[in-house]
Amino acid sequence: MSNYPEYLQKINGEWWLIEDERENMKVSYRIKDVIISESSPFQQLMILDSYDFGRMLVLDGAVQTTSIDGHIYNEMISHVPLCIHPNPKRVLIIGGGDCGVAREVAKYDQVEQIDMVEIDEAVVRLCKEHLPEVSGNLSDPRVHFIYKDGIQFVKEVEDFYDVIIVDSSDPVGPAVQLFEKSFYENIHRALKTDGLMVCQSQSPLFHQHVTKQTLTHIDQLFEHSQVYITTVPTYPGGFWSFTLGSKKYTEVYPQSLVKQTQFVNQEVLQHCFELPEFLRRELQKTSKQTTI
Amino acid sequence: MSNYPEYLQKINGEWWLIEDERENMKVSYRIKDVIISESSPFQQLMILDSYDFGRMLVLDGAVQTTSIDGHIYNEMISHVPLCIHPNPKRVLIIGGGDCGVAREVAKYDQVEQIDMVEIDEAVVRLCKEHLPEVSGNLSDPRVHFIYKDGIQFVKEVEDFYDVIIVDSSDPVGPAVQLFEKSFYENIHRALKTDGLMVCQSQSPLFHQHVTKQTLTHIDQLFEHSQVYITTVPTYPGGFWSFTLGSKKYTEVYPQSLVKQTQFVNQEVLQHCFELPEFLRRELQKTSKQTTI
Repeated sequence: MSNYPEYLQKINGEWWLIEDERENMKVSYRIKDVIISESSPFQQLMILDSYDFGRMLVLDGAVQTTSIDGHIYNEMISHVPLCIHPNPKRVLIIGGGDCGVAREVAKYDQVEQIDMVEIDEAVVRLCKEHLPEVSGNLSDPRVHFIYKDGIQFVKEVEDFYDVIIVDSSDPVGPAVQLFEKSFYENIHRALKTDGLMVCQSQSPLFHQHVTKQTLTHIDQLFEHSQVYITTVPTYPGGFWSFTLGSKKYTEVYPQSLVKQTQFVNQEVLQHCFELPEFLRRELQKTSKQTTI
Repeated sequence: MSNYPEYLQKINGEWWLIEDERENMKVSYRIKDVIISESSPFQQLMILDSYDFGRMLVLDGAVQTTSIDGHIYNEMISHVPLCIHPNPKRVLIIGGGDCGVAREVAKYDQVEQIDMVEIDEAVVRLCKEHLPEVSGNLSDPRVHFIYKDGIQFVKEVEDFYDVIIVDSSDPVGPAVQLFEKSFYENIHRALKTDGLMVCQSQSPLFHQHVTKQTLTHIDQLFEHSQVYITTVPTYPGGFWSFTLGSKKYTEVYPQSLVKQTQFVNQEVLQHCFELPEFLRRELQKTSKQTTI
């Protein structure tokens, strides 16, 4: 008998993580080793070593990021806004405890300050120590770790950041507020008059209502808004969406892209806003404009 | 007790399909209803109605195509070659028993003959009757159903087809031969002097050796070769690759695209050959040229 939660089970002598958060589909991963397992005041945290995806961060039984594909999400949520803003000096990351986004942002020399507001310091500590493929063992002096609730944090900031990146978990429990309009109003106020923001807006296939609602909120607040997509193999349905809101800048400068990327290149940057037909049609009904 | 194979199980009063073909990862789908289940000389066939993906074709326990995302694969494997060949009159489909590819090809008025060589007539029969979202209940007089082994069929054809589409299953069992060089040599011979072919070449993430090997074979035989990708939510890892081999034509004409598509549009057509950085680097080592 083990003391692990029931989503980690030994079946025929092999450990399996059974992701169980969706009603109609379950994904199970064969696990080589439990690297670490601990509880914080916020959640049950595990770093597991899996056969197909390498090490993975698992929060309350749900895979958050993995060694093999974590960089796709982290590069897409970071390099797109940083190649639109012509001079990003102050960047705020809300969430992002696995440090992958901060690591990507820190690749830009012109960025002077990277504030990372993560509610759970245990996520940062475990990922820095046990998930270096994602966190890069981040120790850049420009990165300030602020262990606070991001929703409260942005309420008290005005006209300060050039870029805000919202790297939230799924809209369940406390994270629901990260998808509400009042949160984006605070984000809008925390940005400078030429600032821009990006957030993850879930699967455009399985959570299309979230993608649409996020675009609607951002579209009502910002001068320019647009959805872009990528493929994240460990997220349900593969497709994943991000929504960008900008007060001023709209053009992607592919030449701004740093060289050290595994997924994003100039072509990916230039064409990630071009959506498949079903999604283009759906979002056209939502947004006041269709191109950024 | 039921007579269903063990990959279809009743758990707490609910039917679940447990896809078990991968060693390190299992996906289970909650099932509303078993529409039909039968055995052919080749395989165990089922049409299941699932909660998240609608009706699905399941062969020997592996999901092949679904109502919700089947069109992505079928549109990508069909419209790309048909928008590169300027005058496709004779099209051969190898495999494709779900009729989804034939349905897409039949949308082009200039196509005069669509030969579909599928080894198992039961797949065609079941999909036409019970999976209309994919098959479109195909009854176009230009489509000829030929129930034969595609490998044998192409051995006996020379200089005949404008476009050949290889819609194969995964390279296990008899389908292994559909990934061998001798098969592509026969395809090459069966094509006219300005013909072109496309095949599915598996996940560029999880089966990258297959993608590379397919590109190597095709690159050795054809004047022009190139990989393109898309996202198919029900395939492992989301990313899926296709490899194109062409004797002459290399340019995509987006204006050739028919209007009745759900996924492909002019932008998707123009940019599907632009690969994420990791894949571009890997395939650059394989191919004699990088652009089609």
